[in-house]
Amino acid sequence: MNGYVIGIDIGGTTTAVGLVDRAGRLLAEATIPTRPDEAAVLLADRLHETIGQLRETLPHPAGPAGIGIGAPNANYYRGTVENAVNLRWGPSVNLVELFRRHYALPVAVTNDANAAAIGEQLFGAARGMRHFIVITLGTGLGSGIVVNSELLYGADGFAGELGHTVVEPDGRLCACGNRGCLETYVSATGICRTVLALMAKRCDDSPLRRIAPDALTAKDIHEAARSGDGIALEAYDATARVLGMKLADAVAHLSPEAIFLTGGFAASGELLFAPVKRYLETFLLGIYRGKVALLPSGLQEGTGGLLGAAALIWHELDRLGGRNG
Amino acid sequence: MNGYVIGIDIGGTTTAVGLVDRAGRLLAEATIPTRPDEAAVLLADRLHETIGQLRETLPHPAGPAGIGIGAPNANYYRGTVENAVNLRWGPSVNLVELFRRHYALPVAVTNDANAAAIGEQLFGAARGMRHFIVITLGTGLGSGIVVNSELLYGADGFAGELGHTVVEPDGRLCACGNRGCLETYVSATGICRTVLALMAKRCDDSPLRRIAPDALTAKDIHEAARSGDGIALEAYDATARVLGMKLADAVAHLSPEAIFLTGGFAASGELLFAPVKRYLETFLLGIYRGKVALLPSGLQEGTGGLLGAAALIWHELDRLGGRNG
Repeated sequence: MNGYVIGIDIGGTTTAVGLVDRAGRLLAEATIPTRPDEAAVLLADRLHETIGQLRETLPHPAGPAGIGIGAPNANYYRGTVENAVNLRWGPSVNLVELFRRHYALPVAVTNDANAAAIGEQLFGAARGMRHFIVITLGTGLGSGIVVNSELLYGADGFAGELGHTVVEPDGRLCACGNRGCLETYVSATGICRTVLALMAKRCDDSPLRRIAPDALTAKDIHEAARSGDGIALEAYDATARVLGMKLADAVAHLSPEAIFLTGGFAASGELLFAPVKRYLETFLLGIYRGKVALLPSGLQEGTGGLLGAAALIWHELDRLGGRNG
Repeated sequence: MNGYVIGIDIGGTTTAVGLVDRAGRLLAEATIPTRPDEAAVLLADRLHETIGQLRETLPHPAGPAGIGIGAPNANYYRGTVENAVNLRWGPSVNLVELFRRHYALPVAVTNDANAAAIGEQLFGAARGMRHFIVITLGTGLGSGIVVNSELLYGADGFAGELGHTVVEPDGRLCACGNRGCLETYVSATGICRTVLALMAKRCDDSPLRRIAPDALTAKDIHEAARSGDGIALEAYDATARVLGMKLADAVAHLSPEAIFLTGGFAASGELLFAPVKRYLETFLLGIYRGKVALLPSGLQEGTGGLLGAAALIWHELDRLGGRNG
């Protein structure tokens, strides 16, 4: 099987690009800076150049079968990135058009959490699952929902924004402008806010009290929790309770077989998974109890975005009967 | 077009049965008591008899093309009713098998809210919509979710239980055993509980204070609100706020084109719709604002269950290419 696709994972600071075969093998990969102030067309041009270099490393001359792109605020239906907070691309950039200038190939675009979900489905631990949810836990909380083996896009391409479901209607201010969104509680930044609130509430000593709030990271909290720090442990418990409650809501909507927790903050491992599992079961309606698996990603850490972008276009090609190789 | 199907809407006290053509016309209908203590097989036998009588009223001798059944706690995948609270049928009754004893026909079973959703899709105001949600507001709160023009069943057939999403983790006790479920706030019984809480909180006079809590109904509250009663009006506002917040969550999962509010309690009309619309827009993530319609059912009041059950089997027959007539 010589066929491969181009996967592109556009982040706020770096963009990863790789050539990926149908089995999810990364044949070649590279990372370039994103330069948030640069116009999208220039990023596309630089990627075109990098892709040319990657193709030269292949032992065979075959061209790619398609291009899959994961990007923040991407809209699958329109092929656009819209109002991305970390990229100064304006209200809307059509990535499909930008790449079609260089390639006469199918191009598909989706947001990073959707890409992670389809990567899990094609190459990871969701193989064979028809109904599942992938939650990406990083600076924010993203989600990709698969229903009947297809990504759920909804009426306008923006389905699956669980990070902006409401935990507390008058709660923490969110970057989206609303209050009390899930990602203000459950994310790397969310748990930092929770630690601040707990330091206000509690009086016990903690190494976290010696870190300026601006400098505090989820990694500090993880380390403190592993050393048995009471505030850090309560912060994990509080985070897990909110996540368990909102995942129970997601199950009441979607009845998935499994929920995957991925991304940097999910690397907290059992410190997060164990209490989330417990709270999820507590909040679930009886008919769902014991039926929904809570799982880590089956993809190698750090490859989810790139493999997901590649999986997106492989999935399209499979569906079109254009399976290559 | 002479083809018709049998629609059956099983409720806790009465069961409606009708002969329904592909255009959603009720050719004949009847209602029989459900007798909750009776075994399901005897209800099926009585329905068989009633259906025979209905068929005799038709001007043509053609037989039905299929049977669609809406019932509480029904599972589409298994054809069963499981642990229905209002029917003493035990842990599981296979309705498909019970009806196949009498009819060599396709039989499909789903819960009443799912039936309402597919009825809206085939015969009502959701015609042409690919993504929408139907909320049934009665004693409880049911929901049917349509994604890509198909009812969402999820991994085990029980997707779409929005009545049991969590509003307050330590809130009102729900019949399901959990606390703070949406239907304990938003339903005919939910608004009665809200009125009790408001009578405790407020001191102003109200005609609702002269009705024993056991006798208080949503209809009393509706009438009081229409007369300008402060407690009743605040109860509607509080109910609408909770519903608007949880519908915003549903939109963040599903990105539907429209949400339909149906059922007896939705007959409150603008008293409910106006504030729900306002709160929904407030709680929605920016990308969804102004894009989700909040609508009443397009079906004649009281016919949703029966037409929905018929629509369920028409939809199956359409999909099988067995469109009759």
